[in-house]
Amino acid sequence: MRRVFYRNSNGKVEERGDFTGLSELLKNPHACLWVDLEGEPPEALEAVAREFGLHPVTIEDLVHRNQRPKLEEFDGYIFIVAHGLRSIQGEEVVTDEFNFAVGENWILSAHDSHVEAMKRVYDQVAAAPKALDGGGSFIVYRISDLLVDSYFPALDALEEEIDALEDDVVQRPTQGRLHQIFALKRVLVHLRKLVSPQREVYNALSRRDHPYIDPKSAVYFRDLHDHLIRANEIVESYRDLVSNMLDAYLATISNRLNEVMKRLTLLATIFMPLTFITGFFGMNFTAMPFTWNWLLWTTITAMVITPLAMLVWFVRSGWIGEGSTERGLPRLLAWLFPKW
Amino acid sequence: MRRVFYRNSNGKVEERGDFTGLSELLKNPHACLWVDLEGEPPEALEAVAREFGLHPVTIEDLVHRNQRPKLEEFDGYIFIVAHGLRSIQGEEVVTDEFNFAVGENWILSAHDSHVEAMKRVYDQVAAAPKALDGGGSFIVYRISDLLVDSYFPALDALEEEIDALEDDVVQRPTQGRLHQIFALKRVLVHLRKLVSPQREVYNALSRRDHPYIDPKSAVYFRDLHDHLIRANEIVESYRDLVSNMLDAYLATISNRLNEVMKRLTLLATIFMPLTFITGFFGMNFTAMPFTWNWLLWTTITAMVITPLAMLVWFVRSGWIGEGSTERGLPRLLAWLFPKW
Amino acid sequence: MRRVFYRNSNGKVEERGDFTGLSELLKNPHACLWVDLEGEPPEALEAVAREFGLHPVTIEDLVHRNQRPKLEEFDGYIFIVAHGLRSIQGEEVVTDEFNFAVGENWILSAHDSHVEAMKRVYDQVAAAPKALDGGGSFIVYRISDLLVDSYFPALDALEEEIDALEDDVVQRPTQGRLHQIFALKRVLVHLRKLVSPQREVYNALSRRDHPYIDPKSAVYFRDLHDHLIRANEIVESYRDLVSNMLDAYLATISNRLNEVMKRLTLLATIFMPLTFITGFFGMNFTAMPFTWNWLLWTTITAMVITPLAMLVWFVRSGWIGEGSTERGLPRLLAWLFPKW
Amino acid sequence: MRRVFYRNSNGKVEERGDFTGLSELLKNPHACLWVDLEGEPPEALEAVAREFGLHPVTIEDLVHRNQRPKLEEFDGYIFIVAHGLRSIQGEEVVTDEFNFAVGENWILSAHDSHVEAMKRVYDQVAAAPKALDGGGSFIVYRISDLLVDSYFPALDALEEEIDALEDDVVQRPTQGRLHQIFALKRVLVHLRKLVSPQREVYNALSRRDHPYIDPKSAVYFRDLHDHLIRANEIVESYRDLVSNMLDAYLATISNRLNEVMKRLTLLATIFMPLTFITGFFGMNFTAMPFTWNWLLWTTITAMVITPLAMLVWFVRSGWIGEGSTERGLPRLLAWLFPKW
Amino acid sequence: MRRVFYRNSNGKVEERGDFTGLSELLKNPHACLWVDLEGEPPEALEAVAREFGLHPVTIEDLVHRNQRPKLEEFDGYIFIVAHGLRSIQGEEVVTDEFNFAVGENWILSAHDSHVEAMKRVYDQVAAAPKALDGGGSFIVYRISDLLVDSYFPALDALEEEIDALEDDVVQRPTQGRLHQIFALKRVLVHLRKLVSPQREVYNALSRRDHPYIDPKSAVYFRDLHDHLIRANEIVESYRDLVSNMLDAYLATISNRLNEVMKRLTLLATIFMPLTFITGFFGMNFTAMPFTWNWLLWTTITAMVITPLAMLVWFVRSGWIGEGSTERGLPRLLAWLFPKW
Repeated sequence: MRRVFYRNSNGKVEERGDFTGLSELLKNPHACLWVDLEGEPPEALEAVAREFGLHPVTIEDLVHRNQRPKLEEFDGYIFIVAHGLRSIQGEEVVTDEFNFAVGENWILSAHDSHVEAMKRVYDQVAAAPKALDGGGSFIVYRISDLLVDSYFPALDALEEEIDALEDDVVQRPTQGRLHQIFALKRVLVHLRKLVSPQREVYNALSRRDHPYIDPKSAVYFRDLHDHLIRANEIVESYRDLVSNMLDAYLATISNRLNEVMKRLTLLATIFMPLTFITGFFGMNFTAMPFTWNWLLWTTITAMVITPLAMLVWFVRSGWIGEGSTERGLPRLLAWLFPKW
Repeated sequence: MRRVFYRNSNGKVEERGDFTGLSELLKNPHACLWVDLEGEPPEALEAVAREFGLHPVTIEDLVHRNQRPKLEEFDGYIFIVAHGLRSIQGEEVVTDEFNFAVGENWILSAHDSHVEAMKRVYDQVAAAPKALDGGGSFIVYRISDLLVDSYFPALDALEEEIDALEDDVVQRPTQGRLHQIFALKRVLVHLRKLVSPQREVYNALSRRDHPYIDPKSAVYFRDLHDHLIRANEIVESYRDLVSNMLDAYLATISNRLNEVMKRLTLLATIFMPLTFITGFFGMNFTAMPFTWNWLLWTTITAMVITPLAMLVWFVRSGWIGEGSTERGLPRLLAWLFPKW
Repeated sequence: MRRVFYRNSNGKVEERGDFTGLSELLKNPHACLWVDLEGEPPEALEAVAREFGLHPVTIEDLVHRNQRPKLEEFDGYIFIVAHGLRSIQGEEVVTDEFNFAVGENWILSAHDSHVEAMKRVYDQVAAAPKALDGGGSFIVYRISDLLVDSYFPALDALEEEIDALEDDVVQRPTQGRLHQIFALKRVLVHLRKLVSPQREVYNALSRRDHPYIDPKSAVYFRDLHDHLIRANEIVESYRDLVSNMLDAYLATISNRLNEVMKRLTLLATIFMPLTFITGFFGMNFTAMPFTWNWLLWTTITAMVITPLAMLVWFVRSGWIGEGSTERGLPRLLAWLFPKW
Repeated sequence: MRRVFYRNSNGKVEERGDFTGLSELLKNPHACLWVDLEGEPPEALEAVAREFGLHPVTIEDLVHRNQRPKLEEFDGYIFIVAHGLRSIQGEEVVTDEFNFAVGENWILSAHDSHVEAMKRVYDQVAAAPKALDGGGSFIVYRISDLLVDSYFPALDALEEEIDALEDDVVQRPTQGRLHQIFALKRVLVHLRKLVSPQREVYNALSRRDHPYIDPKSAVYFRDLHDHLIRANEIVESYRDLVSNMLDAYLATISNRLNEVMKRLTLLATIFMPLTFITGFFGMNFTAMPFTWNWLLWTTITAMVITPLAMLVWFVRSGWIGEGSTERGLPRLLAWLFPKW
Repeated sequence: MRRVFYRNSNGKVEERGDFTGLSELLKNPHACLWVDLEGEPPEALEAVAREFGLHPVTIEDLVHRNQRPKLEEFDGYIFIVAHGLRSIQGEEVVTDEFNFAVGENWILSAHDSHVEAMKRVYDQVAAAPKALDGGGSFIVYRISDLLVDSYFPALDALEEEIDALEDDVVQRPTQGRLHQIFALKRVLVHLRKLVSPQREVYNALSRRDHPYIDPKSAVYFRDLHDHLIRANEIVESYRDLVSNMLDAYLATISNRLNEVMKRLTLLATIFMPLTFITGFFGMNFTAMPFTWNWLLWTTITAMVITPLAMLVWFVRSGWIGEGSTERGLPRLLAWLFPKW
């Protein structure tokens, strides 16, 4: 779908069905033309691009998409690629890619996906007679603003996910949490690759020295640049947080292994001697005093008291159940079989 | 709450109820006006900002707050965002955000929270007739000085926390310590995000080439810049220390796991052979010499001597209890069940 | 094999058997000569290079190959080394190295391997009369385009390999997967060493200030530069992914160790007490009530019920089999012996 | 304590009790004054600084000390902070902080601690009539030289400590070694914070463009800069070595855990089957052939031979004791209970 | 030992016994003098240096050696320090340090060790009348070429060592391999400290703006710079490889620990139940049906079949011996006791 907005020398903006007589229009330095191409097939894109006299390199970029954010100067126009963030689904980061070619008194914008918020831009351009006064700068700014703003809700959602995961990781460090951590890592790798070059694009636009960009709009692009610096810092701090999370996960796993082994050692400490004693009196030597009843009772008493005494000692000395709020037997049980 | 200070052409400073006739005042290049807005609602902020003719981008920043520290030049004024450190509560870093707009002969400062130390600035301005002589530079410096100074007590408190934790981590590496380490890490991620751009702001202000900033005050801003470099270096060295702490934690956990396993192996080494021997003489073969009393006594003696000899050997060879200051049985017991 | 293309002053391009009368040709500023040397022996290379008056340093580079991508300016020509990616076989990265010497109106290209796609360049030069108009720039661009394009299929293949490995690593973290991870790491180390300096070469060529490079072709070289930036970013993100994979591998191994130890502890928890009880009643004390049949039955019942009760508790409390979709006995069995 | 050296217009240097008539002295451009303040109380420092007309910011720095190394230019003088390394005691890095204010024909140096080597500077200044010819540059250089030289003995001592620790870490990886490693890490964090900005100070001084610094002395400051680059590189390489040490520590611990577990598994492999066999013949079934003497002897023989055969196999296959220089039983024993 | 080469105004080069009448020689701008000092004692070095009028800072450097590679400009000459790689013995990196002072029409080179390849330089200078035409540049280049070339055989040897170690590490991760890895790490830390500043030296020399360096030789120094960039990249990639190796080592150790523990768990899984059963029938209750022969046989059969069935299941389900090429019992045995 294509929409065409034309401002004549008198400053009146009208929406046209299509752009005919492009060359005359462009010859009039007081007129201004905006052509927005949404989801057009490659051939159509190429045809339009040729009419505007774009360089073959630009045409290739327009047709193939999947460009990284960039700003390139050509004879007669500058070419800008910027991405908005449509959604983050699991590990998949989906973006809205916009390509702009901005000339002296025209601007060509192309994108594949339908972006709801674009309607506001169309309405504003149609309503405000001065919207196309400074050439295409205003359009670039208005759309860029939409694109840049689209990062923040997604980043907020990521933050909530990270916060939720952070608690989970130390409570229940399962293999599933691990998957989530690495999915987050991949999303952040992707986001950084997106935000960081885009920041450079708006930095360049805010430097006031680009042709075809109205110097008055530099301050707006600086604002976008500032937003993207912030987005970038947020992504970097998330990377730090997710790295911390992985460290926390591994440390928790190590802790638990330690606890499991302490548990096993405790069991062996208690039962190995006991089993030895029962084995001892299970020997068939005839000389053994199997008829001494007091020996039997002493043995049994020792078998009961020794493990209990050891457990009491373990609990008291803080060897087991340290950090538990309970005391005595519940502490022992809570330590032996925590609710993992 | 708003406070207004006005210096007339004669250099006399008076505090006013509100600013009326702003435009005339501003027209007088020898006069100087300082308006301080504390916790004003968005609409009031916007209204004041409009009266001073601030750019829409600045107004948006003023109203929404939560800006990263920055310095931006606009036509007719410069806009500065700086943060002081109010408190660090657990993982929460709370800051006092100040926004300044500094024009030729006026300065507008806005902040949400009530900062006790501001009273000193008000008094000083009211008392010192020359405080507003160099335009707003002096005000920016005085408040910035408060903000920058607010970092150091918090950093000192953090250092104490880190020192205390450092000892704990190798003494009692519990899951709780892990939480503390990661909470510290997050605080430091946050602090770095705060200090590092603020350092750039004061670096820029000390470069003497900003309009509306009195060149004489450059040396003061350089001093603030220097303080923030130091704050930044402290934050970075804390990050190093906390990373070291995590490494120490993990190494200690590994050490302990090793010790637990050595303990278990020791138990198995002693009791597995003993249990085997008792099992051997528990077999019911009729040909076994169960009537040889000397064999029984030999067996019992061996059962007593062998483990003892092994333990002595273990202790002597340094396999167990290495590093312990005690010797003999206490050493063995201290090794078997250390006070964790 | 050598191919020689000559454009005379009239702009006609003809392919020649060899280059004779080189000096006269070169004296004609309107003519242009392209010599392509494929797999020539060192002596032949040296002889040709001498005829073109190349610097001894360049001749050494031409003869020895195995140069890193670079761009060097000499009196009378510039020397360019670029690599295409032939194949990645296991850990082995095989490249096609091209050396270019580009003078005022001549270009010398040398490479060892036969590159299929070069045929298209030969045809194009032979067909398009203007191909040699701007000196050697067009040839450099056309061949560089082939070389740069050769990276992307290989990178795509790597991505598939990484994706496949990612799933495997957490499913079946065997030693073999480890080998694959480290082989990938080495390939990426190699690729980075290749892409990163090559990016600089095309960045330099796109700066429009090199002699012997037609300024009009700068925009094409910028396009190649852009492609190589992307290739570099892809390599860097792969490095991140592979590092993540190793972390995932180690975390999975730790998880499994934890599980194995929990399993062992469970077994010990159940059987150590049981073995103790059987040992107890295996003692030969005559006073023991071996004739109380109800005691035997009570013992047997306890031996059956206690472990079952413990297992039920373990499963219910989530201590074992957490995350399993099954319940009851299947859950226990699935936990005891997962299909690793 | 304060020492005052004064060179009059005739080039004669004399030490004075105190500086009186400072303003006249300073008015004489051919005279030169050096005031050295050692351990003076804050009020005295402030008084002297005011007499020299130092900026309030400098006075604050002079009085509070604990400045990071820096070089600041003020109207009429430059201010330098440099540190020498007094000692490294455990984790504590103690420095000698020197502050210099260098004006046209005067230099003020202030330090808290008594530095033995300063005596040489006093003597040299008193002896050499030309020492104060180039203003304060020579004093700054002479003292800086002392300070910079003080780093190297300490760095050498650190190297010895690191070397000694390196061997220990893999021989006896105890918790104490861990403490030493982390203490070293902290010392290195501190040293880096000291050396790195100081390097920048002397880099700046060697650039010949500072007022009040004799251009002829630039080459000396470059030499100091070079020394500090080397000191910095040494610190960085120590950091690498200590990081390696920690890795080595952890790897050694992992190795040992592995060995302990192999040992435990070996014990279980040998004794679990044996215990089972003894248990088997301990069953009380009447049908069991307890009267078959040959079965008893076969069983005993198997009980002796099987473990021995397994051990021989283990040793031969390299499963245990690999890397040991001994063979046979000693190898087994050395493996079972190494001298840790 | 000292060698002196002198080129008179006629361009004839002669080797002299010593340099007498130095000042006259140097006054003749058409003459050129090369003095090479090999292993001279400090006093001799100092005496020669003084005759050439070197700066005290340079003299100190000449006498003390152990300088990092650097390039310093002085009045009347430039001073260069460069290192060749003599050998790598274990962790010890031995270098040949060369110091050059290059003046208008003289060059002084000093080195401690005898370098075999220098003979070629002496011969070439003696033979080629033009060798000293461009001042000392040619000598610097020729010797530097020797020094730079000396890195590559050592780097190749390192690569072979790394390759050999890489296979070993995953096959036999013993403590000895660990030592080798860390020795390699230290060698690489050392090499980087050597190559990286040297690269900067030749980069500076290739910039054509140094006095006393013939601009014509810039292209040769650029070539050396290029070689050193390559050497540096090789060192960096080795660092990556060795880091990978350590990771591989640790991952392999973790893998093995996992395997050992699985083995132990398997043993416990099989023998704990069996031991319990034998214990059960070892109880002395009179009511137990010890006369039921079929029960004995059932028990024995179960004791044989259950473990076998479990093993079959384990092998089939891939729980053990996964990745093994063998099947059945050999697979089990290979898994239980791999040839480590």
